[in-house]
Amino acid sequence: MSAAPVWSVDPRTGNPREQVAVEATAEEVGRAVRAAHAVRDALADRTARAAFLRAAAELLEETGEHIVEVADAETALGPARLGGELARTAAQLRAFAEVVDEGAYLDVRIDHEDGSRTPPWPDLRRYKIPLGVVAVYAASNFPLAFSVPGGDTASALAAGCPVVVKAHPDHPATSELCASVLRRAAARAGLPEDVVVLVHGFDAGVALIRHPLVSAAGFTGSVRGGRALFDAAAARPVPIPFHGELGSLNPVVVTGAAAAERAEEIGAGLGGSATLGVGQFCTKPGFVLVPADGDGDRLLKALAETVSGAGAGVLLDHRIRDAFLTGVRERAALPDVEAPVTPGAGGEHTVSAGFLTVPAARLTAEGPHDALLEECFGPVTVIARYTSQEEAAAVLARLPGNLTATLQAATARPDPAAAPLLAALAPLAGRVLVNGWPTGVAVAPAQHHGGPYPAATSPSTSVGATAIERWLRPVAYQSTPEALLPPELREDNPLGLPRRVDGRRA
Amino acid sequence: MSAAPVWSVDPRTGNPREQVAVEATAEEVGRAVRAAHAVRDALADRTARAAFLRAAAELLEETGEHIVEVADAETALGPARLGGELARTAAQLRAFAEVVDEGAYLDVRIDHEDGSRTPPWPDLRRYKIPLGVVAVYAASNFPLAFSVPGGDTASALAAGCPVVVKAHPDHPATSELCASVLRRAAARAGLPEDVVVLVHGFDAGVALIRHPLVSAAGFTGSVRGGRALFDAAAARPVPIPFHGELGSLNPVVVTGAAAAERAEEIGAGLGGSATLGVGQFCTKPGFVLVPADGDGDRLLKALAETVSGAGAGVLLDHRIRDAFLTGVRERAALPDVEAPVTPGAGGEHTVSAGFLTVPAARLTAEGPHDALLEECFGPVTVIARYTSQEEAAAVLARLPGNLTATLQAATARPDPAAAPLLAALAPLAGRVLVNGWPTGVAVAPAQHHGGPYPAATSPSTSVGATAIERWLRPVAYQSTPEALLPPELREDNPLGLPRRVDGRRA
Repeated sequence: MSAAPVWSVDPRTGNPREQVAVEATAEEVGRAVRAAHAVRDALADRTARAAFLRAAAELLEETGEHIVEVADAETALGPARLGGELARTAAQLRAFAEVVDEGAYLDVRIDHEDGSRTPPWPDLRRYKIPLGVVAVYAASNFPLAFSVPGGDTASALAAGCPVVVKAHPDHPATSELCASVLRRAAARAGLPEDVVVLVHGFDAGVALIRHPLVSAAGFTGSVRGGRALFDAAAARPVPIPFHGELGSLNPVVVTGAAAAERAEEIGAGLGGSATLGVGQFCTKPGFVLVPADGDGDRLLKALAETVSGAGAGVLLDHRIRDAFLTGVRERAALPDVEAPVTPGAGGEHTVSAGFLTVPAARLTAEGPHDALLEECFGPVTVIARYTSQEEAAAVLARLPGNLTATLQAATARPDPAAAPLLAALAPLAGRVLVNGWPTGVAVAPAQHHGGPYPAATSPSTSVGATAIERWLRPVAYQSTPEALLPPELREDNPLGLPRRVDGRRA
Repeated sequence: MSAAPVWSVDPRTGNPREQVAVEATAEEVGRAVRAAHAVRDALADRTARAAFLRAAAELLEETGEHIVEVADAETALGPARLGGELARTAAQLRAFAEVVDEGAYLDVRIDHEDGSRTPPWPDLRRYKIPLGVVAVYAASNFPLAFSVPGGDTASALAAGCPVVVKAHPDHPATSELCASVLRRAAARAGLPEDVVVLVHGFDAGVALIRHPLVSAAGFTGSVRGGRALFDAAAARPVPIPFHGELGSLNPVVVTGAAAAERAEEIGAGLGGSATLGVGQFCTKPGFVLVPADGDGDRLLKALAETVSGAGAGVLLDHRIRDAFLTGVRERAALPDVEAPVTPGAGGEHTVSAGFLTVPAARLTAEGPHDALLEECFGPVTVIARYTSQEEAAAVLARLPGNLTATLQAATARPDPAAAPLLAALAPLAGRVLVNGWPTGVAVAPAQHHGGPYPAATSPSTSVGATAIERWLRPVAYQSTPEALLPPELREDNPLGLPRRVDGRRA
C-alpha cells in the first residue's frame, strides 16, 4: 500500500494545486513523537526559548508575503485578512517570549520551615515544569493564528514543551511552510529543529493522541472531531489533558432600550460581525435575541441591508460548504422560521450570507427548534424575536456553553434590563462583551478564549498569557539542599523570578 | 424495595456498631444536587465564605473530642493520630479562609484599551468564578482531612462552590457528624445549610458524577474506583473536570554514600514511615532502591528491627485487609523475592508489618515482577537492591506517576550520585524530598499533593493554597461599563484585590 497523498486544493475552483506531502503512518507518527521527545531537554533554557519565539516571529514576517500568498491560494481568506493574521501570529509569538522572560507563569512559591504550624511546615519550594510533548491539532479557519505557528504551538513552546502539529487538510502547503519557518527559527536560536514536528492525515491525528509519549493536546475545530479526540485522550491507559475548542453559538442579546436607541447601528454591526471572513470565525455571533417590536424591525432592516451587501464568498472547503448549505436548509424548513435574507449557494464554489428569524417562544422548551441552538459554521445567524425579558432569559438558560456572550444595552441613559441580562449571559461564556462584537480576539494578557463546554473541554484559554498554564504541572521540592535545587527555587533567586514566599507576594 | 442500610462497623471486631443512614437513591442524589445548586448564589459573598470556613474550623474543634471518639471506633486509627488529623483539618479550613480573604486566587488581570497593539486591545478584565456544584468523594484513610470536612470540601467552598459529599463507607458516622458540623457552621455564618450535602452509597456516587448540575469532582481513593469515576466524568454529554488522587508507590532511592553514612538512621526512618498508620498513608514509601552491598545490608537490618517492632495493627476494613494479604502473598511468591520480615495476618482482625526484597535487575524490563511496581495498600514496602547507578535509573524509568519521590543522599560530604538521581526522580512525582520521609503532608501554600497519573488525574493539587484553582474558571469582561462590572474588576479596585494591570503586577 502506498502512502496517501496530501493535496493542497484551491477552494475557489475545487482544483488540486499541488501534492504537498503524504499522510503519516502510525509508525511515522511514532517517529515524530520520539524525535520531539528526544529534544525536550533542549527547551529547558528559558533564554533560548524566548529567543526562539522571537526568531520565529521575525522569520514569519520575513517570509510573510509568500506565506500569505500560499495561504490565500488554499483558503481563499484573502490577502488582507491573512496579512493581519500573520501580524497577529507574530505578535503572539513575541507576547509569549515576554511571558517566558518574566517567569511569573512558573508560579514560584516558597515556604520556609516553620515548626509553629499545624502540622509543622518543612521547607517547601514549588514551581511549574513542562508536561512533555504536546500534540497540536490545527484549525481550518485560521491557517496561521490557530494552526502551525498559532497560539497552541506558541504557548506550548513557551512552556518548554516540544510540539507535534497535526496539520489541517485545508492548508497543508501553508502548514509545511510555517513548520519550516519554526524549525529554522529553532536552529537560529541554537535549538534542535525537532522541537516542532509536522504530520498530516486523519489517522495520524488519532495515532498522535494515543501515543504514550504525548503528554497533552490542544485542539481547535468541530464538536464532532474534537469530542472524538477528547474521548481518545480520556480513554488512554494514562489519560492526558485535552484542551479543545469545539464550538460556540456566541449569543447576543439586544435590550429594548438599545434597539430604541440605535437599531440601525446594531443591525449593521451585527451584519458585519456575522459575515466577517465569510462567517467562519469561531466567535461569529450565531444567535441573537432581538425585541419583537418596531425597534427590532428597524434593526433587522439594517441587518438585512448589510448582509445582502456582503457579496458571495468562498468557504474554506467543499465539505464545509455542503454542511453550511444543509444546515441552513434544515433550519429554514422549521415551522415559523423565516429567512429575510436567504443564506445559500451563490455560484458553484461560493455561498451568499443571510439570516433566519424565529419567535423566541419556539425556543423556551425542548423541541425540533433546538437545531437553531447549534452552531452553523458559515455566514448565517439566527435572530430570535422576544416579547419579554423573562422570555429572553428563558431562552438563554437553555443555551450550551460559549466562547463569548454579548449584551447590547442603551448607552445614553440607564438601561434597567442591562444588569439582569448580563447576569444571565456571564454563566454562558468565557468572554462577556457589552456594546461590542465578539469577532476579533485580542492577544492580550487578560484575554480568555474558552468557556463552558462545548466552547472548551477544560476551564482554560487558547489565547492570552494564561494559555501557557495548560502545558505545565507543579512540582514541590521538600527539604532540598540549596545545591540540589533547580535555580528557579534557590533562596537567593538567581533568576530574579517573581515569587510568593511564606504565603505572601515577595 | 426498601433502602439499603448504611452501617458503621468496628474494624477491630468486624461487628456493626449502628445503622447510620440509608443509601441514597438516584432520585435522592438528584434532590441533594439540586438543593446544593439552588443555594450557590449565597456563596458569592467572599466575606461570608471566609467566616463560614472559620466557623467550621471552630465547631470542628469544639466537637473534636466526640468526633475523634466516633472516628476511632469506626477506623481504628487511634485517638492520637485522629486528634492530629482533626487539628490539621481545622487548620486547613482556616488556611482557605485566608486564601479567600486575600483574593489572589481570583487572578484578576486588567488590560486597558490600547490601539497601538497588534491587533488592538479593547478594555479586557478577567477574573475567576466558581464552576458550580462540586462532588467530593471521601477517602477511607483520612476520615477528616480527606473526607467530609477535608481539603476538597474546604477548597471547593473557598472557591464559592456548594459541595455534595459522597461519604466513604468506612466511616459513615464520622461523615454524618462532620456534615452536621459544616451545615451548622454555614448557618452560623448566615449561609444556607445546603451549601454542604452528604450522600451515602456506591450507586449514589455513580449517580452523582453523572448528574447534569454537577460541575466538577474531587476524589481520593483507589485506581480502580477513581478510574471508573474519571471515565464516567469524561463520558458525560458535558464532560467535567475530575481531580482524582488514585494511587502512588512513592519511590525512595538511597545512594551508596548515604547508606555508608547512616544506614541505621535511614533504615529506622524508612520503617517508621512505611508503617505509620498501619501503612495506610497514600504517601507511604512503597518502593525503595537500596544498594546491594554491606551498607545496604546494615540498612535492611535496621529496617527489620523497626518493622518487627511496629506490632500488629488493624486495617480500615476487612476488604482492605483481604486485599493486603492477597497482595503480599502474590508478591512474595515471585522468584527471587524474599521477606526478611514477613508481612501478613496477625490475629483475626489485625495484620503485621513487613517488607520484601528483590534484586533490581528483576525490574529493568517488563515481566511478572512488575507487580512489585504497583501500590500495595497496607504495612509493606518493597526493597529493590541495585548494583549500579545505571541499574537504579533504569528501574526508576519504568515507574508510573507518584505523589512523592525521595532521595536519601550523603550529607557530610558531596554525593556525586545525588544530582543525577534527583533528576531521574523529579519527572516521576508531584513532590520531591531529599533526606526526609514522604508521609506527612504539610498544609502550606507551596504544597503540591498530586503528580503524574495515577497519582493524580490532572496536573492539580488536593492540598495547599492552589487546591482552590481546581474549582474555578476564568471569565473576561470586554468593554464593559464600570456600572455593569463585578466589583472585583472595577477600575478603582473597591475590594483591594491583588491584580495584574496591562501585563504587570499592580
